[in-house]
Amino acid sequence: MTFAATILTLYPEMFPGPLGTSMAGRALERGSWSCETLQIRDFATDRHRTVDDTPAGGGAGMVLRADVLGAALDSVADARPVLAMTPRGAPIGQARIREIAAGPGVTIVCGRFEGFDERFFEARPQVEQVSLGDIVLSGGETAAIAILDACIRLLPGVMGAPESGAEESFENGLLEYPQFTRPYEWEGRTIPEVLRSGDHAKIAAWREARSEYDTRLRRPDLWERYSGARDQSASGARRDMKDD
Amino acid sequence: MTFAATILTLYPEMFPGPLGTSMAGRALERGSWSCETLQIRDFATDRHRTVDDTPAGGGAGMVLRADVLGAALDSVADARPVLAMTPRGAPIGQARIREIAAGPGVTIVCGRFEGFDERFFEARPQVEQVSLGDIVLSGGETAAIAILDACIRLLPGVMGAPESGAEESFENGLLEYPQFTRPYEWEGRTIPEVLRSGDHAKIAAWREARSEYDTRLRRPDLWERYSGARDQSASGARRDMKDD
Repeated sequence: MTFAATILTLYPEMFPGPLGTSMAGRALERGSWSCETLQIRDFATDRHRTVDDTPAGGGAGMVLRADVLGAALDSVADARPVLAMTPRGAPIGQARIREIAAGPGVTIVCGRFEGFDERFFEARPQVEQVSLGDIVLSGGETAAIAILDACIRLLPGVMGAPESGAEESFENGLLEYPQFTRPYEWEGRTIPEVLRSGDHAKIAAWREARSEYDTRLRRPDLWERYSGARDQSASGARRDMKDD
Repeated sequence: MTFAATILTLYPEMFPGPLGTSMAGRALERGSWSCETLQIRDFATDRHRTVDDTPAGGGAGMVLRADVLGAALDSVADARPVLAMTPRGAPIGQARIREIAAGPGVTIVCGRFEGFDERFFEARPQVEQVSLGDIVLSGGETAAIAILDACIRLLPGVMGAPESGAEESFENGLLEYPQFTRPYEWEGRTIPEVLRSGDHAKIAAWREARSEYDTRLRRPDLWERYSGARDQSASGARRDMKDD
């Protein structure tokens, strides 16, 4: 099955861009995914093909018109999820990426300028407003490329080793443990001995401890959620024992 | 002054990619920024030009060698900040983007496979490990493109209207207010009356209230930080009054 990506954009020439090379590019050639672009400007109705106008109430920049966006999106109405890239959206996480990658594909609407006329979202409630992170881009295109990259690597047959995905960051609410490889010694620094012990249980324990330690240090927000959930399930287990 | 971007990557053909078109592409042609790529493989020392090896302790995938990365980075030693894109890093935010955009440029190290040998970071403490958000990409390249996009739009003369940046999302700890533009009526939905009143104070108040409302609803994490800071400064103000 082909994962079908459709991008609504004012810059169709940006796609597939970097996704036409490397792992994603090989997957595109093999037909694991497809990349269709729709020029938003083609859905303008006046003879100047206007897609934007000044913000109501004043302010800098230009706002994408709801009627043009609505017509563009209506032309691809199907069962695939629809994302609109905007810093006003909720940050997309790996769990949602996995859901999307497991489905038939995705439609992504890329904004530019000062963003979308809000009525586009009110009138098309199937559109999920998502952001990549707490940074502001010149448009949704580079965010769409990152989102597609995250989806494509999860498609069947794309990653060399399918188990690569299982232990990586965010999959269990923690950051991944640090990695080491040859040479054994570099600039006076060696690989942690436990990783050369061949003792799989010890290695797994060390990796879990480092995952927890690094998450706590680097991402207190993830750690709070993770340890909260763990404490809850631990107190649940205690309750169960008492109930017996 | 030219903002100089240097990318260490196994896929130099991905750059400037989408940043060669649109606003970023015009800025590149004008010399507002420059884009240099370094092929990490050129710093391998064996005749097979090996850049990666299996993870110490076992596991799927391949890990980028610290010695090769170290040699590649040492070749660009200068005063610019160095970012390494990794899901184990702290999420980069708009404040750091602004700092970087205000400086001479940036060096970005792009990982692939299962990531970096951790000793690269231990031995080169100038490297900031950053992530784009809580998703896993096939490599750092698409993240680097998004980071550069965010920086380039802030360079002098790149954005059409410089004041565009001032009221946008994250700049004051809140999401931006929703935007509206012509036509006045679309699918039975009108533009909020206040935005057509011409009363600038009222418009500003409406926008602030909507910014707060939307942030509270969509980003409880941002709202908690924002309202916590506001309460603190309010109680500080009360204390000041009492002291008088």
